[in-house]
Amino acid sequence: MTTDQLLHWLGYPAACLTTFAFIPQAWLTLRTRNVSGISALTYAAFTLGVVLWLAYGWHERDWALIAANTITLPLAASILWTKLREDARARRSHRERRPH
Amino acid sequence: MTTDQLLHWLGYPAACLTTFAFIPQAWLTLRTRNVSGISALTYAAFTLGVVLWLAYGWHERDWALIAANTITLPLAASILWTKLREDARARRSHRERRPH
Repeated sequence: MTTDQLLHWLGYPAACLTTFAFIPQAWLTLRTRNVSGISALTYAAFTLGVVLWLAYGWHERDWALIAANTITLPLAASILWTKLREDARARRSHRERRPH
Repeated sequence: MTTDQLLHWLGYPAACLTTFAFIPQAWLTLRTRNVSGISALTYAAFTLGVVLWLAYGWHERDWALIAANTITLPLAASILWTKLREDARARRSHRERRPH
């Protein structure tokens, strides 16, 4: 395999890494519900971006883009959902503890 | 603009969102150093994936890929670096507190 072929081949591991990378984060977040250090804005923007990539990939019939983003979407969305839900809970319990 | 053109155009906002999405997370992590809910494995795999996308984009002379990943790389790497450094600190202070 020439260097040229190797570099051309890099797209596959790159796609796999940036796709499957979110599995440990989703697992950690769902298991621990520890979202204090997680940015809701990041996961909102990232999830929306993944949705747009999915629509773009579908339009272009780019099956690699469709496959990668079909895997990443539920991972990113579950992190975002847990973050929003836990923050809402924290706000509610904070309000309940305040003296009326 | 036809639907066809609109869907074709989606690649640009998709790329911007999944690129700039990590700015708030990097800012939050660097400012608060709260890394307990962040997965080191996720950011290690993601950062490596971004490096490979950069090499692939360079080889293919794909300037959109090069630009996007040149922005994402320092963001992902700074989150990963902060996570590894804070975890190492936590382990060290944990060891120091243990009775000898």
